[in-house]
Amino acid sequence: MEIRSLYFDGSILHILDQRYLPFEVIDVQCKTECDVWEAINKMKIRGAPAIGVAAAYGMYLGLRNFEGSTETFIQKAKELKDYLDSARPTAVNLAWATKRILDKILSNGEKSPEELKQIALIEAKNIENEDIERNFKIGEFGSELFTDGDTIMTICNTGELATIKHGTAFSVIKRSFEKYKNISVIALETRPYLQGARLTAFELKEAGIPFRLITDNMAAFVMQKGLVSGIVTGADRIASNGDTANKVGTYMLAVLAHYHKIPFYVAAPLSTIDLNIESGKEIPIEERNSDEVTHCMGQRIAPNGVEVYNFSFDVTPHELITGIITDKGIAYPPFKKSIKKLFEF
Amino acid sequence: MEIRSLYFDGSILHILDQRYLPFEVIDVQCKTECDVWEAINKMKIRGAPAIGVAAAYGMYLGLRNFEGSTETFIQKAKELKDYLDSARPTAVNLAWATKRILDKILSNGEKSPEELKQIALIEAKNIENEDIERNFKIGEFGSELFTDGDTIMTICNTGELATIKHGTAFSVIKRSFEKYKNISVIALETRPYLQGARLTAFELKEAGIPFRLITDNMAAFVMQKGLVSGIVTGADRIASNGDTANKVGTYMLAVLAHYHKIPFYVAAPLSTIDLNIESGKEIPIEERNSDEVTHCMGQRIAPNGVEVYNFSFDVTPHELITGIITDKGIAYPPFKKSIKKLFEF
Repeated sequence: MEIRSLYFDGSILHILDQRYLPFEVIDVQCKTECDVWEAINKMKIRGAPAIGVAAAYGMYLGLRNFEGSTETFIQKAKELKDYLDSARPTAVNLAWATKRILDKILSNGEKSPEELKQIALIEAKNIENEDIERNFKIGEFGSELFTDGDTIMTICNTGELATIKHGTAFSVIKRSFEKYKNISVIALETRPYLQGARLTAFELKEAGIPFRLITDNMAAFVMQKGLVSGIVTGADRIASNGDTANKVGTYMLAVLAHYHKIPFYVAAPLSTIDLNIESGKEIPIEERNSDEVTHCMGQRIAPNGVEVYNFSFDVTPHELITGIITDKGIAYPPFKKSIKKLFEF
Repeated sequence: MEIRSLYFDGSILHILDQRYLPFEVIDVQCKTECDVWEAINKMKIRGAPAIGVAAAYGMYLGLRNFEGSTETFIQKAKELKDYLDSARPTAVNLAWATKRILDKILSNGEKSPEELKQIALIEAKNIENEDIERNFKIGEFGSELFTDGDTIMTICNTGELATIKHGTAFSVIKRSFEKYKNISVIALETRPYLQGARLTAFELKEAGIPFRLITDNMAAFVMQKGLVSGIVTGADRIASNGDTANKVGTYMLAVLAHYHKIPFYVAAPLSTIDLNIESGKEIPIEERNSDEVTHCMGQRIAPNGVEVYNFSFDVTPHELITGIITDKGIAYPPFKKSIKKLFEF
């Protein structure tokens, strides 16, 4: 089975409801902008690239039945952008995608509403296809780092569910599996939200890639036993010196990899690198609700009234990173120089 | 509230049912050897020292209503030992404790059954008191390593529930808290069985010691942020060179502590050190049922048919250990020499 976080069939935007995975595979059928808003807001869909593409199609769905003048059409498009952006106000990629659709409409202000509808649809498809292409390239470049017989360790979910296709770190794993005979994976369950156990395990199973699931605290012992050839993780934000913010536990893996002399790679599209940020010190770390730690899948696991730390992300300093796999190639230390070079192509 | 994993009130052996902690505090009242067998077998009680003491009292409970000759009494005691040992055949401490009771009876073979019943009861109390005394001394020695304002990180459950009183690593924490004004704790939840979230959080809360609960994958980031003064863990088995087998995740903490230059201590009674073992390589690591990893508190968290690694313990090499806190004092590197010295006292 091919997993698609979403696809547009020409009439309906289909979204795979991630809240019930891996236990139920539910196809959410979005016919209006309201359906898309609901899907984003209720986290039926997650992962920055996937949210962006869903919102882009949401723009088209909200405009396709429009009747009236171009002027009113443009007004409607502006309102629609604000409406869709409000579904998850902090998701940068959402506002970026709706802006791309709106900008395309604005720069074609002389055209008819019917023509503008087609322009919006084409731009949504462009955003979708660019994500697919970028992730495919990440897989191409990253798979060069592995070889037959390797076992790749990963954390959280970086697969088809977080993107449109291929994923980021998952793309490296998938392409390595396609190219070499014998690739296996060790996936960390990734508490508190269990993206590894719920989503990555689901994707690996569907892709037919052999893997073992472990609890996060087993990672060190598995490395000590020599079971890991290399580690690939995703990234939420990368500073211009290579410091990488990603799901909490990523920094743990980087330190453990350093001690065990195992290569540690980060995989992300170049758009994840923020050249405006000098180092990881400038990246704020979100602290989330304590319920996530005191509960596991909605079930309480600790006494009432317990205080927790719940850092959602951590920052891995660049000196622990072997290489950063992007859609433009792999950056190696010194990253300040190599990252700058990737942007020049 | 004082937590006691068990206590004998002169007539009934009370066991605190650990299966329902921290959600329900259930007092299991054992009046016969069968009640004790059931409590051990069904894991109402866990932790090597606690199991040993429960079984010792189980010997007394099974003998106290005996009527007949000394010869038949001894025969009955032997059968009773085999019966109680069968409750958890791999628990070394269980058979050790029942053997102590039986040996005491055998070495007093000239006495009457009534006298032998009292001898059995006294020996059970001795085993109980020795555990309390040993753990208190661990706390005394270990608390010297900390000072006002320190934050101690720990994993799994090493407290009053796993022992009779004080605990091992927990005894160091408790005594430090009593001695200094301002001690706090960071407790790892300890997947898959969540002994940290369920039991240690419960004990810390009852003791009034300030603490934060974290998921296991947050340990590295919390160290990076400078929030940890030192780490103290328990031990399941220590080799004569200091290599230590303990709950999986302990080795992870040791590597992370090494990288962050944070002292890493192991706390255990001298009886945990196995001088017959040269190094950790000789310690077999139990692999447990995959259900523990694919589930969390009985609830499935991963797709069906997923393969896992489920190593219950890991081995921390001695070179990562700052010191081993025992009831006879603290051993420092080189451990081969310092451990030997502790045994000479």
